[in-house]
Amino acid sequence: MFNKVYLVGVGLINASLAKDLKRYQLAKTIIGVGRDSQRLAKAQALDIIDNYQLLQDCNVSDADVIILGVPVGKTGDSLALLKPSLNPRSLLTDVGSTKGNVVQAAEEVFGELPARFVPGHPIAGSEQSGFEYAQEDLFQNRKVILTPTENTDEAAVQDIKKMWLATGAQVEEMTVGQHDAILSATSHLPHMVAYTLVNYLGERDDASSIFNFAAGGFYDFTRIASSDPTMWVDICKANKDRLLESIDGFSNCLNELRSAIDKQDGDVINALLKQAKHLRDASLLK
Amino acid sequence: MFNKVYLVGVGLINASLAKDLKRYQLAKTIIGVGRDSQRLAKAQALDIIDNYQLLQDCNVSDADVIILGVPVGKTGDSLALLKPSLNPRSLLTDVGSTKGNVVQAAEEVFGELPARFVPGHPIAGSEQSGFEYAQEDLFQNRKVILTPTENTDEAAVQDIKKMWLATGAQVEEMTVGQHDAILSATSHLPHMVAYTLVNYLGERDDASSIFNFAAGGFYDFTRIASSDPTMWVDICKANKDRLLESIDGFSNCLNELRSAIDKQDGDVINALLKQAKHLRDASLLK
Repeated sequence: MFNKVYLVGVGLINASLAKDLKRYQLAKTIIGVGRDSQRLAKAQALDIIDNYQLLQDCNVSDADVIILGVPVGKTGDSLALLKPSLNPRSLLTDVGSTKGNVVQAAEEVFGELPARFVPGHPIAGSEQSGFEYAQEDLFQNRKVILTPTENTDEAAVQDIKKMWLATGAQVEEMTVGQHDAILSATSHLPHMVAYTLVNYLGERDDASSIFNFAAGGFYDFTRIASSDPTMWVDICKANKDRLLESIDGFSNCLNELRSAIDKQDGDVINALLKQAKHLRDASLLK
Repeated sequence: MFNKVYLVGVGLINASLAKDLKRYQLAKTIIGVGRDSQRLAKAQALDIIDNYQLLQDCNVSDADVIILGVPVGKTGDSLALLKPSLNPRSLLTDVGSTKGNVVQAAEEVFGELPARFVPGHPIAGSEQSGFEYAQEDLFQNRKVILTPTENTDEAAVQDIKKMWLATGAQVEEMTVGQHDAILSATSHLPHMVAYTLVNYLGERDDASSIFNFAAGGFYDFTRIASSDPTMWVDICKANKDRLLESIDGFSNCLNELRSAIDKQDGDVINALLKQAKHLRDASLLK
């Protein structure tokens, strides 16, 4: 049980975690830290946090654990503002969607990755953003990836792992590089594809008919295109190389299918569609 | 109320329609017509159809209405087998996902589009196929598009329209060309994108980790990649030109985003993602 938990950034993920930390009696006091006192006051009024501090003059020296939940491009700025009051005994972790740039930002601020900083990423969320959409049990049966480096204190990793396990999550460790490669394919690429699909439909001459006749499946398919642009601009910049690789790999596969359609080659089209159906159906059984 | 309804092909759509025709007392007797007597016997055992005939020696002369629900590439073959016993007074319609090739197939078999043939397409369904997945009220609040030509008898259009309205659908008319262009963008393209995304992930070196760490959103996003390949090969071939146009338009948009990511141009990335979010959120309000 943590005595004091500081949430730096009180968005969907950190607010959902706050709910679980309270319900499962994992935290006594939860302090929100951010830049917007009105938003923080609202989160307090909703009982998501017990009280709050402004990031620019925060004092986190009594923290058991500090959880960063800011757009990944704001990691460095946030850590620099935490640094003056940071107690080296405090656990530090984050919930960002990219890990390479988070580790790099921490190294830039502290000279090296602090031993008690455990980079993390819960694979959960929704296209909605803001603490108003916080959900209890958001992490139940979801994967949380921790990416400790050789600098990271093993006891710190175990403490962060215990916290996530208590929310019902499954915790796995991998390297920063593995994380960013895998997520570029499973999450970042699909988001770019969904945003692009909507933009393409919107720029067509028959756009108004198109949105009128879109089937239910279209809305499922493009749900993630309603995700927060600010968060995703940061992810695009932070994971640029891996994401470009994934976009290019995807484009090559689309060209292969395009070419088979162009040639009316039913056998190749059939083989490609069957392979995809088989892969997806099999992956669901895992 | 129809006395005798013939369903040529008893798949998800026709079987779901059969359920509604019975529940809403729109059909007295429903006869399945197909190529596989075992499947037809099973559909009869499940009370989806009252009895059945094999397509190769069917007699549909007493039909009030004949509803074609076969993969769109089988339209010509099916119509040729119906032709000998077809009563010119019978209503004829179909539920195919493409309309240009269906009309063309009918013109080839009959010399011109029969006056009582009303090409149609209910925008409903799921990634599942087969009458086992038939659902009551599948068409409730869904759009059904009818694409009559100048050959089509207006009374026939009104009768088919009434049938769909009785299932709770909204019926709209447009030209064959408009239908195929719109659907290439709202349905055919997203299916190709989803199939391709799964294939790309499957061919990566880290494919096994990828499917292990895919988030819930990934399964929503790729749900349509579990659709029936046979049906989709036919759609690709039938709507080739429009589909290639849609794939190319999408690829251009993806390249625009790719280029902004490559340049780390946050303003352009942000503008593109915001535009997509705005378009999707606005289209949901309609």
